[in-house]
Amino acid sequence: MSFTLHSIASDCPARRGQVQTLHGTFQTPVFMPVGTQATVKAVTPEDLQALAAQIILANTYHLFLRPGHELIRELGGLHKFMNWQGPILTDSGGFQIFSLKELATISEEGATFKSHIDGSKQFLSPEDAVAVQEALGSDIMMVLDTCIPYPATEKETLEATRITSRWARRCRTAQHRESGQLLFGIVQGGMYPELRKLAVDELLEIGFDGYALGGLSVGEPREQMYDLTEQGAALLPADQARYVMGVGTPEDLVECVYRGVDMFDCVMPTRNARNGMLFTSRGRLVIKNARYQRDPRPLDEQCSCYTCRNYSRAYLRHLYVSREILASHLNTVHNLHYFVNLMAEIRRAIDEDRFVEFRRRFYNQRQA
Amino acid sequence: MSFTLHSIASDCPARRGQVQTLHGTFQTPVFMPVGTQATVKAVTPEDLQALAAQIILANTYHLFLRPGHELIRELGGLHKFMNWQGPILTDSGGFQIFSLKELATISEEGATFKSHIDGSKQFLSPEDAVAVQEALGSDIMMVLDTCIPYPATEKETLEATRITSRWARRCRTAQHRESGQLLFGIVQGGMYPELRKLAVDELLEIGFDGYALGGLSVGEPREQMYDLTEQGAALLPADQARYVMGVGTPEDLVECVYRGVDMFDCVMPTRNARNGMLFTSRGRLVIKNARYQRDPRPLDEQCSCYTCRNYSRAYLRHLYVSREILASHLNTVHNLHYFVNLMAEIRRAIDEDRFVEFRRRFYNQRQA
Repeated sequence: MSFTLHSIASDCPARRGQVQTLHGTFQTPVFMPVGTQATVKAVTPEDLQALAAQIILANTYHLFLRPGHELIRELGGLHKFMNWQGPILTDSGGFQIFSLKELATISEEGATFKSHIDGSKQFLSPEDAVAVQEALGSDIMMVLDTCIPYPATEKETLEATRITSRWARRCRTAQHRESGQLLFGIVQGGMYPELRKLAVDELLEIGFDGYALGGLSVGEPREQMYDLTEQGAALLPADQARYVMGVGTPEDLVECVYRGVDMFDCVMPTRNARNGMLFTSRGRLVIKNARYQRDPRPLDEQCSCYTCRNYSRAYLRHLYVSREILASHLNTVHNLHYFVNLMAEIRRAIDEDRFVEFRRRFYNQRQA
Repeated sequence: MSFTLHSIASDCPARRGQVQTLHGTFQTPVFMPVGTQATVKAVTPEDLQALAAQIILANTYHLFLRPGHELIRELGGLHKFMNWQGPILTDSGGFQIFSLKELATISEEGATFKSHIDGSKQFLSPEDAVAVQEALGSDIMMVLDTCIPYPATEKETLEATRITSRWARRCRTAQHRESGQLLFGIVQGGMYPELRKLAVDELLEIGFDGYALGGLSVGEPREQMYDLTEQGAALLPADQARYVMGVGTPEDLVECVYRGVDMFDCVMPTRNARNGMLFTSRGRLVIKNARYQRDPRPLDEQCSCYTCRNYSRAYLRHLYVSREILASHLNTVHNLHYFVNLMAEIRRAIDEDRFVEFRRRFYNQRQA
């Protein structure tokens, strides 16, 4: 069993645990920085270590197309290729293919799509998705799933959910378990709680090393996302890791932990950093704003990151308006620190069984 | 006296020395990475320290326009603003204004030009150039000079050289020497040795803390640049630092050291890094080349930089073709290490009086 449950809060489903992988153990709840193309944009692996990132995510779709999983295997696997020795989770490519919209078609056999790089026709079956992730050598692999547009009818959703279950079984069968790589199932079911229940049942029957809630944060109201997360987490076994894919804002992380989720990934901290939007304990800060032109203060006076220890808002604004690469670097270090540190504070709060109080203070500080 | 001469080679004018500044002493010959907009592009100050850069250069023209020298003064000066505690040399803005061509006009009073950022009309007198550099708080300031197009007639060149001398005197008079900031003169004279001699004489009469050879590497044949460098260095006093501005390739550095130059700056290592052109002990390497696609070797097997210790050519090529920011970072670290390390090897060779032998091996290795 790769997941160990440490504790559950006395007044909500928030929980502390850890996941053991081939490249070490990480503590949950955890946020995974996204390294789409075998690099977390604008930072080095040493920067990630320095800000205490425990595990990162890489995108199978992107690496399959460029530079190719066989090339990465030849060069010793993804960890060696990108110089990151900690755990890596790879998604299956399903979500990226889904995002291509009219460039992709789904059949029982698999997904046919056109490369966003050169327009070439490509095909990925569930077996291929596992083979690619095995070649990459990630610690946690994800099954190939079909995503569901929002909104979608119950009939469409049922069909897509059923294919996802059949693909999940094919992934589990195709996997070479002796490698020690973990494989997580993905719960689909769209916005229909009864279909999500069906999806959970089918996945549990197959049996995976952990379970993701997929198809959330695709345009639905925030409350609906929270409700489906709460329902999904409650249906999943207590002794398995739970992962909500592609979520989210700091508020989303707090709310999903509150509902019993263990793992998260999102491009938000890195992408927003490059666009000059910084996360702070008091809310968001847009660095190009003229009010920061002569501001000698750090981004967040409560923050202990490299950027806040060494640079003023005035300097960060100068770098941003001057389009300097260092702006992306320093902003990314700060935003990732914010997310990683938020999760560390969340873990501490759960350890001390004061997470509900932590959540209250988290919101109060933002209103101040 | 800020410069201390340690030794001169027994068989050529190459020399070892050191320059003492408000922010510490650096050893010469030295290469200064260029930090145009108060950042050496794509690296942090800690990266610069790690690769043993001793002093960096910042551009007065750029900082004058954005974010403005008064803002930098308010925030504690350039060192604090950009988080670099080592020596900083600022150019005067003369070369950048000259590069604006039709957007600039020179009068006895100073230079009138249009901002490349917003087209606004700007004026910089010699006194302004010193005041701006005093506000920035650089360790070594440069006089405002007028640059000379290539080719130029003797008459044009004489006129420009004469204005440069008069401006040099005004700069020296305007300077508040009690601050401890050093001021270097700039030898103009274009491609005319007798005018360069005249320029040196006029500058020596005023007296500066060091002397730069300006107006070189502007399109003239390489041999002519070397000849004028040799002549200029020979005319300058042995007990003062000599700086050839904006030079150059690794070969140029070796050749100018051979002719008695102490200080260099150039955007080449940083700019070429961002364009995927890497310097190695065997010559240049263009990382996007398909031959590196599956190459597991480091950029340079003789290099001990962070990039070469941790990443393959295959990975660096992947980052470059994927337009990842990390490509610029890792390539810049490597190229700057190459330049900084080349100068360290040059200093060692001069210390041990084997620089001529070092120069021979430098070329032999490239032909291999």
